[in-house]
Amino acid sequence: MSLSSPETSAREAFPTAELLYLLAGDPPELAEMLAVLQNADIADLLDELPPDAAARVIASMPFDLAVQLFDEPILERRREIFHRLDERIAAPLLEGMSSDEQVALIREMDDDERARLLSQLDHPTQRELALLLRYPSDTAGGIMTTEFLSVPVDWTVDQALRHIRQVGRAKETVYAIYVVDEANRLVHVVSLRELVTSDRQQRLDKVGARKNPVYVAPLLDREEVAMVISRYDLLAVPVVDDDGQILGIVTVDDVIDVLIEEETEDLQKFGGLEALDEPYLEVGMRKMFRKRGGWLAALFLGETLTATAMAAFEDEIASAVVLALFIPLIISSGGNSGSQATTLVIRAMALGQIKLNDWWRVVRREFIAGILLGLLLGVIGFLRIVIWQIGYQMASGQQLYGDHYMLIALTILASLVGVVTWGTLIGSTLPFILRRLGFDPASASAPFVATLVDVTGIVIYFSVAAVILRGTLL
Amino acid sequence: MSLSSPETSAREAFPTAELLYLLAGDPPELAEMLAVLQNADIADLLDELPPDAAARVIASMPFDLAVQLFDEPILERRREIFHRLDERIAAPLLEGMSSDEQVALIREMDDDERARLLSQLDHPTQRELALLLRYPSDTAGGIMTTEFLSVPVDWTVDQALRHIRQVGRAKETVYAIYVVDEANRLVHVVSLRELVTSDRQQRLDKVGARKNPVYVAPLLDREEVAMVISRYDLLAVPVVDDDGQILGIVTVDDVIDVLIEEETEDLQKFGGLEALDEPYLEVGMRKMFRKRGGWLAALFLGETLTATAMAAFEDEIASAVVLALFIPLIISSGGNSGSQATTLVIRAMALGQIKLNDWWRVVRREFIAGILLGLLLGVIGFLRIVIWQIGYQMASGQQLYGDHYMLIALTILASLVGVVTWGTLIGSTLPFILRRLGFDPASASAPFVATLVDVTGIVIYFSVAAVILRGTLL
Repeated sequence: MSLSSPETSAREAFPTAELLYLLAGDPPELAEMLAVLQNADIADLLDELPPDAAARVIASMPFDLAVQLFDEPILERRREIFHRLDERIAAPLLEGMSSDEQVALIREMDDDERARLLSQLDHPTQRELALLLRYPSDTAGGIMTTEFLSVPVDWTVDQALRHIRQVGRAKETVYAIYVVDEANRLVHVVSLRELVTSDRQQRLDKVGARKNPVYVAPLLDREEVAMVISRYDLLAVPVVDDDGQILGIVTVDDVIDVLIEEETEDLQKFGGLEALDEPYLEVGMRKMFRKRGGWLAALFLGETLTATAMAAFEDEIASAVVLALFIPLIISSGGNSGSQATTLVIRAMALGQIKLNDWWRVVRREFIAGILLGLLLGVIGFLRIVIWQIGYQMASGQQLYGDHYMLIALTILASLVGVVTWGTLIGSTLPFILRRLGFDPASASAPFVATLVDVTGIVIYFSVAAVILRGTLL
Repeated sequence: MSLSSPETSAREAFPTAELLYLLAGDPPELAEMLAVLQNADIADLLDELPPDAAARVIASMPFDLAVQLFDEPILERRREIFHRLDERIAAPLLEGMSSDEQVALIREMDDDERARLLSQLDHPTQRELALLLRYPSDTAGGIMTTEFLSVPVDWTVDQALRHIRQVGRAKETVYAIYVVDEANRLVHVVSLRELVTSDRQQRLDKVGARKNPVYVAPLLDREEVAMVISRYDLLAVPVVDDDGQILGIVTVDDVIDVLIEEETEDLQKFGGLEALDEPYLEVGMRKMFRKRGGWLAALFLGETLTATAMAAFEDEIASAVVLALFIPLIISSGGNSGSQATTLVIRAMALGQIKLNDWWRVVRREFIAGILLGLLLGVIGFLRIVIWQIGYQMASGQQLYGDHYMLIALTILASLVGVVTWGTLIGSTLPFILRRLGFDPASASAPFVATLVDVTGIVIYFSVAAVILRGTLL
């Protein structure tokens, strides 16, 4: 059995971007060629062309297809191409798009461009867009579309199906039909499947299950909207205001895009940089430097405290250089265990498995886990020193770590238990603190935790050494 | 405007798990209570009960609802509850479930339980499950369901709609209708929306766009299946074998679950531990220790090489203790920049923005970024040393870093450029190497990269110091 990737399945007889451009002079031929292609594949071809050329192809293709393409968030240079379209095409194109994509496109524009464009639209569209643009882009209101089907509760199945045949040509809107009462409040949701399989004369409120409809408020975070759609296996979720009126719907395909975008952001934050918001290879070096340099410099400044901490123990290092050898080992163990703990807590928070008030349960668990993991590493470290020492002595007759190697091994063991437990506690607590303060817990990145733990790790290590080695090496 | 979360929206008059259990003695009352609740909310309540009690509630509720609940991956203790059901309920319940969830449930069972259960099923179901269980659980074949609608290409819209009214009661299956030729090969896909809005007498091959159908092969990785559904905005994608026959479909709600699960796994791997596969608070301490201890011990063993590297420079440290002070600062900078680079590359690979043969482009970019970021940190480090030295001298009359502080500052600057560039290169190359070798690039975790970079960071630092400080401090 071979793998046929989407490329092979949808790309039989696949044209090149250049061919598309050449055919822009022959609209019927172009239309013929594009008819068999999936929109996402056409969008990819357009993205390969310079924006001017892509604009020319858009202008030559059937208008409906052009609207559909601008309705695809996959068209990466949408704004640049749009910017180059003749105004007589641009305004109707925008008006033909679904409202969520209109808003997404307008948000990408600068103020001048936005103002000029809005002035060319008809008044209802202007008013609607102004309303939608007020919602932050990461909320349900910011990603919803206002094209949805709502019908009165006293209609029959037959009336609803006739209505759909008349207006329901847009893809996003038709699989859930929202049933409203005389005050236009959402009372029931019927699926197209239920309509098709029901008796034609049935009243809508008698169709389907009597379940309470699931809805979200306009200011709910878009990631939580995704969780609602996932939890209730919906194809769309209505966005409902305090009066019970439907403002719009968020569809499942938008939610998938949200999940993928948010995952990218979360991973990038967790890796210790600002989210890029653009594909890796398309980010300019200047922007790349800014997104990475800021955090890197901040972490570096934090890490300079390790030099200060080390300076406090300069005499100890001078009298027992052997202690210095194990510093990287000790502090990195704290960083690694902290990174594990913070990952677990951040993700469990994002999935709603852990709430703020679970912090004590989490800390208790992590305290025990930290001690156990610290003991594991401590024993390995202890054995490593003793075995190396004995092996070296047998091979060369000399001592690797000096007379007091057992004490040093003990220092390493005790320090590792302390540092790993501490790292685990810091790593698991930090997301709670960040969340409590209103920050994104995902900012508790692996490098951030490691930096916090490094400084304290040094202090723990030398303090343990001071106790165990007093009178011998120190 | 207040946020009404899904809890508030779907939980008006919400019963407790205990009430559910009490009502298990009165099936009509129980049915009445459950009728208005969303399945996911009922599943949550059942998960709060001990498995025995949950099994009793399941046995008392309407059979159709019980089937739907077992069709929800959100019912966490599905296997334990199922295990406690009377056999006369269990077998028909399983037969009523959709095939993807049957397979998921059976995969959770141990061999004995599975064999016993399979023997109780009717022969067609047995054969079908045996076939589905052959596909790995992380492929299209492993998550597909075999309930889908396929109709002959010479049918009319009217025939198709009648067919749907007869058989299309299952939710998963009905929004895309797969049109096949006489050899049962997929030739066209029609959506329910297109059917409903088309002329009843139209032949199916004349309905909707003439686009090439999108499909996937049964062995395609489930994460890539998710990307296909996302890319083409599908509600389901057909899984098609080499002969063009449809084996099943993967639906969008399964794909959302896949995305959320895969994100969890990726983050946990990236945080330097094995994926947990269970909610954080439900993982026992023994399992938690195993999942974290393995990687932590491996990283620790790798990190012991830093002690070996440091030992090679023991004389240098003894003659210039001041050098030791900056070791954590230097090596952590390499680790942090490496962690940034590896995050970017892993994610861009997962999104398909970077392919294996882009490695040279990536390495070139990262080399430049590394040098620039190294210079940034180097200059900050240089200034930090010079300013501290001068400040300390003015305040106390003593020298903090000795006579040769300018040389030390220069050593730090040059080392940081070297270590950060090196960290960036390692971090960006490692995912390519892992992928090339057939491993998951996400295994290039932040702690893994940091460990690799730490050892070489020490060597770079002392080598630079040997050149700059020769004849003065060394």
